[in-house]
Amino acid sequence: MIYLDNSATTKPDPAVLQSYQQAAERFFANPASIHQFGGESEKLLTRARQQAADLMHVSHNEIIFTSGGTEGNNLAIKGTALKHQQRGCHIITTAVEHASVSEACGGLEQLGFDVTYLPVDENGVVSVQAVKDAIREDTILISMMHVNNELGSVQPVQEIGEVAKDHPKVVFHVDHVQGMGKVPLKLTDSGIDLCTISGHKIHGLKGTGILYVKQGTTLFPLLHGGGQEDALRSGTENLAGAVSLVKAIRLIKEKETSGIRHMQELQSLLRKKLTAMEAVKVNTPYDAAPHIINVSVPGFKPEILIHALGEKGIYISTKSACSSKQSDESKILSECGYSRDRTASALRISLAYDTTETEIHTFADALAESIDQLKAVME
Amino acid sequence: MIYLDNSATTKPDPAVLQSYQQAAERFFANPASIHQFGGESEKLLTRARQQAADLMHVSHNEIIFTSGGTEGNNLAIKGTALKHQQRGCHIITTAVEHASVSEACGGLEQLGFDVTYLPVDENGVVSVQAVKDAIREDTILISMMHVNNELGSVQPVQEIGEVAKDHPKVVFHVDHVQGMGKVPLKLTDSGIDLCTISGHKIHGLKGTGILYVKQGTTLFPLLHGGGQEDALRSGTENLAGAVSLVKAIRLIKEKETSGIRHMQELQSLLRKKLTAMEAVKVNTPYDAAPHIINVSVPGFKPEILIHALGEKGIYISTKSACSSKQSDESKILSECGYSRDRTASALRISLAYDTTETEIHTFADALAESIDQLKAVME
Ligand SMILES: Cc1ncc(COP(=O)(O)O)c(C=O)c1O
Ligand SMILES: Cc1ncc(COP(=O)(O)O)c(C=O)c1O
Repeated sequence: MIYLDNSATTKPDPAVLQSYQQAAERFFANPASIHQFGGESEKLLTRARQQAADLMHVSHNEIIFTSGGTEGNNLAIKGTALKHQQRGCHIITTAVEHASVSEACGGLEQLGFDVTYLPVDENGVVSVQAVKDAIREDTILISMMHVNNELGSVQPVQEIGEVAKDHPKVVFHVDHVQGMGKVPLKLTDSGIDLCTISGHKIHGLKGTGILYVKQGTTLFPLLHGGGQEDALRSGTENLAGAVSLVKAIRLIKEKETSGIRHMQELQSLLRKKLTAMEAVKVNTPYDAAPHIINVSVPGFKPEILIHALGEKGIYISTKSACSSKQSDESKILSECGYSRDRTASALRISLAYDTTETEIHTFADALAESIDQLKAVME
Repeated sequence: MIYLDNSATTKPDPAVLQSYQQAAERFFANPASIHQFGGESEKLLTRARQQAADLMHVSHNEIIFTSGGTEGNNLAIKGTALKHQQRGCHIITTAVEHASVSEACGGLEQLGFDVTYLPVDENGVVSVQAVKDAIREDTILISMMHVNNELGSVQPVQEIGEVAKDHPKVVFHVDHVQGMGKVPLKLTDSGIDLCTISGHKIHGLKGTGILYVKQGTTLFPLLHGGGQEDALRSGTENLAGAVSLVKAIRLIKEKETSGIRHMQELQSLLRKKLTAMEAVKVNTPYDAAPHIINVSVPGFKPEILIHALGEKGIYISTKSACSSKQSDESKILSECGYSRDRTASALRISLAYDTTETEIHTFADALAESIDQLKAVME
């Protein structure tokens, strides 16, 4: 199998799965139970939280374990909105967010909030000035992604963090789900108040994630209950999940520098090979994150090519996995100004640290072959 | 180890853990990815959902996979409230709910909802008539537990379901987290619209659960996003978690009849032994669920006895794990009308299908011995 759909999800690292297994088996007591066995679970949870904090260069009380990226984004956005609605009801986001951000904002609109969806340029990038200009008296939240999940475009979140610093009453949330391990992000003294990561995008397990909540940032909890996770995310802790996530983050961080360089090389190679194909138009900008190449093959329905490649054991995607069943057209590409022949024929190839050069060659050859075969049939 | 804290959490069944492991390893593709590998994940998810539905005698489109009991309860309560606030803002619950229900209701009070907390009798049971009387023109939700997590008291939810049937605009939610596998609950044609279960209370894994959502019941999602779980609970599906939860439910259902009978016998035995101890007062009523015995040992701080037993490798609890660190006093017991010497000295012993008679004897002897030793020290 050649798996090039790493933006949709990644293969869990065997070491991550093993950490999970061991913790689930041996430390099954409820960390809230006051007996010694519960105390051992609690100690392990405390250690996992400290390790996550160390790896992310933040403080242990800024780590909220969640069930994934969608929960992190919803908690950040709705939690801020419901907490601060007395102060204002205006939210700023972009037109190219993942559904877990855009739909959360849409949900808040139903509840009476006012959302500004900032446009992006042809590279899928929002302008810092536009963000600045959008801030109003009643703005309570700016929420945006770091790296776009379809195109790989990188938003200027560090610069926007500087803008946010000048507006201490505006909470700044970054969806770092596609950025983690691909484009480093500084959290300390960054102006970022909330930052979402998801385990299964970094060879961790589905159902795990972290919301970084900068000290002093208050939220209305989505999950009320026993007061776990600093009362921001109640529920019996998924200790094994937390331990496994820390393992995944550690493994990523250890390999990050070389992994990014490796993916950049493969991305360049792939770009060259794809650019050389007449039928293929590359959509991903040059300064994008290293793990994504988005292309269009005008005239070809993406699912046909994806299935043809799938028959050869090569797996790529169209758009974001989450929205891929709803329509052929990519909203993100059309926000970038691409015409319909291109927005309706997009393919996403997404890499991991362990993707090989051979896999890239095999994929590119297979794509060319599939296009030729389909062309022959269509003529 | 003698583990008698099964109401806080249970030991994952090795077969459940194995299901998880296999699914996480082999079916890691995103079920939303349209390639063949994603299709295999989707097929497995569909099968898991159908199996869960069959085991619970409901329809596959009524099964929403969640991250646990707390999420299920919050989604049921807040989801109903936020969806139907135009229709009314009155919620009925009881004074003895788990924090994930009572705090969710408290959160809604902050947002302007009006909550009635019905009192309970000395057995911890709410009256059907009181529920009937509490229903108003603007009532949108009745939410209550099936089995109390501290006392084991069983609420008359099937009767209240009949009441709810007469009020088609009132949504009826049952927190079945402590009932599953202990006190059977009929969902079909029961008047119950929403029902929460949690994996880790039935030898499943933490981070897994189901919210039963009766066909036609609408909710405001807590997690907006890619539209997974019938758009009621977005987020990349925790497929391995879902598969493992189905395994846990199947194992419980297979053993349910004999398991309940076995726990009833052990509970009787334990009640007899504890009743015979002069220092011990049994709080759990006779018609309670079979897995919980709650007792008070007036004059003894629960944590002292719990630690003394812990030294002997015997693990029991005080109150619900979730609230056990906050105060010595049991809110549930004081709602039942017990005096402070009893509410401040409560211990909870909770059984599983595989608890043995020998363990019950060993525990009872150890408790008696610990009490004697502490008495000697105190005199
Ligand atoms: C940019 C982005 N944000 C959020 C999410 C949601 O994360 P999760 O799948 O963990 O719910 C995803 C992936 O699906 C994503 O790509
Ligand atoms: C009655 C009851 N409801 C809800 C919960 C919450 O479930 P979870 O621990 O899966 O979040 C619990 C247990 O903690 C419980 O005992």
